[in-house]
Amino acid sequence: MSLALDEARAAAERGEVPVGAVIVSASGDVLVLAGNRTRELNDPTAHAEILAIRAACSVLETERLVDCDLYVTLEPCPMCAAAISFARIRRLYYGAGDPKSGGVEHGPRIFSQQTCHHAPEVYPGLAEPESAALLKSFFAAKREQ
Amino acid sequence: MSLALDEARAAAERGEVPVGAVIVSASGDVLVLAGNRTRELNDPTAHAEILAIRAACSVLETERLVDCDLYVTLEPCPMCAAAISFARIRRLYYGAGDPKSGGVEHGPRIFSQQTCHHAPEVYPGLAEPESAALLKSFFAAKREQ
Repeated sequence: MSLALDEARAAAERGEVPVGAVIVSASGDVLVLAGNRTRELNDPTAHAEILAIRAACSVLETERLVDCDLYVTLEPCPMCAAAISFARIRRLYYGAGDPKSGGVEHGPRIFSQQTCHHAPEVYPGLAEPESAALLKSFFAAKREQ
Repeated sequence: MSLALDEARAAAERGEVPVGAVIVSASGDVLVLAGNRTRELNDPTAHAEILAIRAACSVLETERLVDCDLYVTLEPCPMCAAAISFARIRRLYYGAGDPKSGGVEHGPRIFSQQTCHHAPEVYPGLAEPESAALLKSFFAAKREQ
C-alpha cells in the first residue's frame, strides 16, 4: 500500500486527483504501479485502477488477472469496480471510502449485484488516514486556487 | 445505429462478443466507430463503448464529450455506464437490453444512483432485434464449437 500511496502523491504533483494503484501477482511480485492520469491523457477512463489493470494484462498477455491482488488508495468507483470484476482480481485492498462516488461499499455496490459474475475478496480501510489526508489536502489546495 | 451494427458484425468476425458503438458530435458528425476488442487487446476494459469514448476524447483533446451522443448495440455494462457518465455523454441510444450483465436498466442501474453525477438521456430499444440476433447467433455458434 505504501507503493500505491507513492503513486497517489505523484498523481497529485501532476495535478491529478491523488489516487494510486498497485497490482501484485500470485507469487507476491509487484506487476504494475499506476496513478490517475485522466487529465494528462484526456481520458475519463484513465483512473489508477483501469490503468493498472490494462498494464498488468499487457504484461501477462491475458485479459484475466486470476490470483492477482489490487491495492488502491481510494474506494473504486463503479467503472473500476466492474473492471476489477471482469479482470477476475482475487483480492481488493483499498484505503479511504468514497461516499460521494464509490462503487464498492457505496452507491451501486457493484460486487453485490446479481449482474456481477465475479467478486474479489474486499479489504477496506488499509492506510485509510494517509489516503484520505492526501485527497483532502489536494482538494483544499484546489479550492484556494 | 446501422454503423454500430456494422462494428458489432466486424467484432463477431474477429471472434469478439459482437457489440459496436458510435459517437456522434454535437453537429451530427460521426466522430468515432469502435467494436469490442477485449480478446485481441488482452484488455478486459476494451468494450466498444470504452474504446469509442477514449478515441473520441483523443480526437477532441478533452476528457468531456459534452453534447456528444453515443450509439451502442447492447445495453452498457456498469463499467461502460459509469464511463459514459464521466465523459458527460448527452444522449445514450442502445439496442438490446442485457438482463445478465447490463448496468442501465438492469443490475446497478448506474444512472439512478446518488453517486452518479451526470446521467445522459437514455433511449433503449433502437434496432433491438438486429442487435439481439447478432448476439444470439454468435453465442449459438460458440456453443457448437
